[in-house]
Amino acid sequence: MHVPTDIEIASQVKKKPIKDIAALIGLQEEEWEPYGKYKAKINLSVLDRYKEQPDGNLILVTSINPTPAGEGKSTVTVGLGQAMNQLGHRTVVALREPSLGPTMGLKGGASGGGYAQVVPMEDINLHFTGDIHAITAANNALAAFIDNHIYQGNECHIDVRRIVWKRVMDLNDRALRNVVVGLGGIKQGVPREDGFNITVASEIMAIFCLASDLADMRRRLSRIVVGYQTDETPVTVADLGVEGALTLLLKEAIMPNLVQTLENTPAIIHGGPFANIAHGCNSLLATKMASKLGDYVVTEAGFGADLGAEKFLNIKARMGELDPKAVVIVATVRALKMHGGAEKANLKEENLVALREGIKNLKKHMETIEAFGLPFVIALNRFVHDTDEEINFVQSWCKEQGVEVSLTEVWEKGGNGGLDLAEKAVQTIQNKQAKFMPLYELEETIENKINRIAQQVYGANGVHFTPQAKEQIKQMEANGWANLPICMAKTQYSLSDDPKRLGRPETFDITVRELRPSIGAGFLVALTGDVLTMPGLPKEPAALKMDVNENGDAVGLF
Amino acid sequence: MHVPTDIEIASQVKKKPIKDIAALIGLQEEEWEPYGKYKAKINLSVLDRYKEQPDGNLILVTSINPTPAGEGKSTVTVGLGQAMNQLGHRTVVALREPSLGPTMGLKGGASGGGYAQVVPMEDINLHFTGDIHAITAANNALAAFIDNHIYQGNECHIDVRRIVWKRVMDLNDRALRNVVVGLGGIKQGVPREDGFNITVASEIMAIFCLASDLADMRRRLSRIVVGYQTDETPVTVADLGVEGALTLLLKEAIMPNLVQTLENTPAIIHGGPFANIAHGCNSLLATKMASKLGDYVVTEAGFGADLGAEKFLNIKARMGELDPKAVVIVATVRALKMHGGAEKANLKEENLVALREGIKNLKKHMETIEAFGLPFVIALNRFVHDTDEEINFVQSWCKEQGVEVSLTEVWEKGGNGGLDLAEKAVQTIQNKQAKFMPLYELEETIENKINRIAQQVYGANGVHFTPQAKEQIKQMEANGWANLPICMAKTQYSLSDDPKRLGRPETFDITVRELRPSIGAGFLVALTGDVLTMPGLPKEPAALKMDVNENGDAVGLF
Repeated sequence: MHVPTDIEIASQVKKKPIKDIAALIGLQEEEWEPYGKYKAKINLSVLDRYKEQPDGNLILVTSINPTPAGEGKSTVTVGLGQAMNQLGHRTVVALREPSLGPTMGLKGGASGGGYAQVVPMEDINLHFTGDIHAITAANNALAAFIDNHIYQGNECHIDVRRIVWKRVMDLNDRALRNVVVGLGGIKQGVPREDGFNITVASEIMAIFCLASDLADMRRRLSRIVVGYQTDETPVTVADLGVEGALTLLLKEAIMPNLVQTLENTPAIIHGGPFANIAHGCNSLLATKMASKLGDYVVTEAGFGADLGAEKFLNIKARMGELDPKAVVIVATVRALKMHGGAEKANLKEENLVALREGIKNLKKHMETIEAFGLPFVIALNRFVHDTDEEINFVQSWCKEQGVEVSLTEVWEKGGNGGLDLAEKAVQTIQNKQAKFMPLYELEETIENKINRIAQQVYGANGVHFTPQAKEQIKQMEANGWANLPICMAKTQYSLSDDPKRLGRPETFDITVRELRPSIGAGFLVALTGDVLTMPGLPKEPAALKMDVNENGDAVGLF
Repeated sequence: MHVPTDIEIASQVKKKPIKDIAALIGLQEEEWEPYGKYKAKINLSVLDRYKEQPDGNLILVTSINPTPAGEGKSTVTVGLGQAMNQLGHRTVVALREPSLGPTMGLKGGASGGGYAQVVPMEDINLHFTGDIHAITAANNALAAFIDNHIYQGNECHIDVRRIVWKRVMDLNDRALRNVVVGLGGIKQGVPREDGFNITVASEIMAIFCLASDLADMRRRLSRIVVGYQTDETPVTVADLGVEGALTLLLKEAIMPNLVQTLENTPAIIHGGPFANIAHGCNSLLATKMASKLGDYVVTEAGFGADLGAEKFLNIKARMGELDPKAVVIVATVRALKMHGGAEKANLKEENLVALREGIKNLKKHMETIEAFGLPFVIALNRFVHDTDEEINFVQSWCKEQGVEVSLTEVWEKGGNGGLDLAEKAVQTIQNKQAKFMPLYELEETIENKINRIAQQVYGANGVHFTPQAKEQIKQMEANGWANLPICMAKTQYSLSDDPKRLGRPETFDITVRELRPSIGAGFLVALTGDVLTMPGLPKEPAALKMDVNENGDAVGLF
C-alpha cells in the first residue's frame, strides 16, 4: 500500500481562501494583507483593537529530548489545534517558520505531518512570506555597515579582532563557518577573521521574536553589540546610526503570518529562532495575536522541555507577560525506547526493558514543568509499530504517577486522532490552577541563574565555568548586563551537555565554555559543549530529491 | 518652497487596488495572486491563453552614457507609459526590480521619480515580492552544494582552484569581494579562495531574465558551469544533480510582478540584472507578458545604449524573438554638458560650448540604434536650470540631423509632461518601418563578435585581447561554446573602456582582459577594464537617513 507523503496529503485537501480564515477569527478587511490566495500578513493594529479583551488560554506543547526516532511534536501541536476546533473550542495554532537550511539539508520540510499539517506546506517550507530573507538582509546589511565603517576611517574605533557580529545565510553551509573577509588589498576592505551563522541563529531573529511592537524592535536593534574597542568598550548599532535602516528592512516581516491547518484551523506562523543557540519559539507578537483571536492558543517550543520550554517560560513568557495555563509533553514509544538504550534499527521490536529505562527521560521533563508551576498532560504519539504491551506500559506508568496521558493518532487521523488529548487539555485548564513562575529571579547573579537551570531543569550536580567564561561573566557584570535572563545553548539530544548520554543521566556537571551577550534580544547566551550555529549538509542532501513537476508543483518536500 | 520628495509624492497619490489593475489588462481571477493590496504575481498560463494574439508594439527606452548629472531614463520610461495611456493607447510598462545594494548605498531607490514613478515605491525598493531574495537563496544553495560535494568525497573531481561559482548578497559589501572559506580544520570544509558578487550580477539572475518558461529555466540552470576538473573539463549543475532544487527555489519568483504607476498605468516589474556585467534588462517573461496585455509596451535597458540597448537587442531580443518597433534615446542638457567637459558643480550655468561638444555622445548612440535597423525619437528630459538657449540648441541640432526630438517634463508633470513624446513615438511606429536585426551572427568567431560590438557600438578602432583572454577563447571554442552571443562587461560612463573619457572618444582600442562563460544564461561575458561585480558602500550610506515613522511608514527612501 502506498502511504501518501505529506506533500501528497497536503495537496489533496481543500484549502479555504485566506479571506475566509481571516473572517473566521474576526479580522477586519484593513487588518490583513493577502500574500497569494492562502497566506496573509496580519496588521499589528489588531493588538490595539483587542487591547482590553482578556487573553485566550495558552497551551504550550513540548516534548522529551528528541531522538532520531522522531517524536512528532509539531504534528501533535497542529493535530491538537484541529481537535480543539472539532470540539467547538475556538483555537488558534502558533508555530515557528521553518528555515531553508534544514529543509534543503535533512528534514525536507517542517510543518507538521500526515493529516496534521499547516498549509500551503510548500510555501511555508520555502520562502513563505519572506520574513527570514528580510532578517538575513538586515543581518548582513549590518555586517556591511560595520566593515564599511572601518574602511571609511573607523570613527567608532572598533577593534577588528573584537567584532562579534557575524554574517548569516538561511542555509546549511559548513564552508562558511570560518572565513577571512576583506582580502585583496587596500581598496577591498580590511582583512579580518569572520564567520557565518544560519539566519535562525541571528540575534536579529531573536529580537524579531521578542519585540512587543515596531518601536520596541527598533530600540532592541539599536542595543545590539556589534563589537568592542581595544579597551573592551562595547560598540552598538546605535553608535553606527543604522537602527532606522534595519527597522525599515523588517517593517513588513514583523507582521505575523496567517495560514490554516488541513482542517482549516487558523494558524499563525511567525519567526523561528533555533532552540539550541537561541530561545526556540515563534514570535511573541504571534503568540499575543493568537491569544486575542482565539479562546485557546496551542503553541510549541523547540526541541525538548529542557531547551524550548525552559526558554519559553524563563525568557519569552517573562518578557511578554504571558500566562500559560497548561503544557502538553509529547513522547513516543520509539523515542522512549531509544532513551532506554534501544538501537534505531531495532525500534520495530517490542522492548519493554528499554521502555522502562527510557521513560525516566519523560519523568525528568514532567518534574521540570511542575517546577514552573504548570499542570500538564502527556501525549503519547502513536506510531504504527508500537505494540499494545508497550502502550499499556506507558499508560499504566502514567496512572501510577497520577498524571493524565492521552494516546494521539493525529498523523493518521488528523483532529479525530487528538480529541481525547483536547478534552484532557481543556479539563486540565478548567480543573487545575496554573501558578506559573519563572525558575529564577533576574536579580540573581549570572552564575546562580545558570546553576538553577542546570540543577532544576537538567538534573546536573553543578556547573563548571571555564576561565574564559568566568572572565566574560566579569566583563558582563561590568557592562551592567548581569540582570538579563539566560539563554542556554546546549545539545538537544541529552539532558546533559553530552549528546550521547540519553535517558536521564545522573551525577554530571555542565560545562559553560563561553558567554555571548545578546543585548538587543535581552539575554545572555551561555554555551555548553559544541553547539553548531551553522549546520552542514549531509552526503545526500534532501535537495537532491526536490524538483518541480510539469504542472509547476513542488516535488520532494516531505 | 518645499520640493516634495519621491516618497512624499508617492504616498500622496491614490493607488488603485491591484485587482482593478489586473482587471484593466484583462487578467482572469485565477491568473494572478495578490501580494499585499497593491502588488500581484501573474501566472505564466497567461502566455498560453494569449499565444495566438499578436504582440503589442515594443518601445525600448535607452540613453546617452550616464553621468553624475543624471539622465532620468526610468522616469522617462514611466512618464511615457503614463502619457501613452492618457492618449488612449493601452500601454504596459516593463521595468527591472531594484537591488537593495544600491538602495541602501547611494541611490536610495530606483522606481522612477517625481510624478513619474511606479508604486508602492517603498515595497518595490525594499523586498518587493521576494524575487531577488529567492535568487540569492538559489545561488548560495548551489555554492553550499558545491562545497558539500567536495567535503563529502568530491565524486565529480572538482578542482578547488577552478571553482568559478561565487556566492552572492543583494548588498553593497566590499569586504566580501575576496574571501577565504572552509577554514577551521577538517570538520569545517576544504579551504579555498572565494568571493561574493552582488545578487544582480549572478548568472541565476541572468537565467531568470532570459528563460522562456519554467522548463526552460530548469534546463538553463542545469547547464551552469560551476567549475572545472584539473584537466579543464567543465563541471555543471546537472553533474551535481541539483537543478530540480534550484528550480523549486525559483518557481514563485519566476512569475512576473504587477504594480502600477502614479497614474494607474499597469507596470510589470521583474528581474534586474546589472547592465555592466550582465545584460541589464527586465525578464523576457515580463516583456512577453506586457506585449500580450498591452497594445504598446514601454521598457528600458540599463545604462547607455552602448551597454543596455546593445545587449537588449543582440542578446535578449534575439533569444526571445522580440520585435522592437522604436527606440527612445533619453538625454539631458546637464549630462550633455558634462560629456562636453563641464564640471558637475557648474551645471547650472549656461554652457553652449560644452553642449555642442557633448552632443557628440548622443550622436554616436543614434548611429548605433540606426545600425540595428530601428527608428528612434530623442527625449530631451528637462531639468529646472536648463536655459532656453540650451534647449533651442539641442532642438535645432536634432532638426539639422533630421531626427525627431521631444522635450519631456515627466518628473514635474507626470504623463502630461510626456504627451508630445508619446505622440511622436506612436507616429514613428506608424510611419517608419522597423527592420530590426542583431549586429552580428552567432556563427561568427568570438573575436569577430566582440570586434563588431567595439567598432560599431563603441566606435573603437579595434580590440586588444590579453594572452589570458586569448587562451580562454580557445578553451571556449574547444568546449563548443563559440556560437553564443557576447555579453560585454564595460564601464557605463564612457563609450570606451576608460570611465574618464566622456563625450565621443576617438582613436581608442578596447582591451578584453578576461572571458567568463555563462552557459546557463547562454552568453559569454567579455570583461574590459575594471568592472566591479560587488559594489562598496560610500562614506555616508543612504541607509543612515532611512527609518520608519510612528505610523510604520518608510522614511528616507528618495
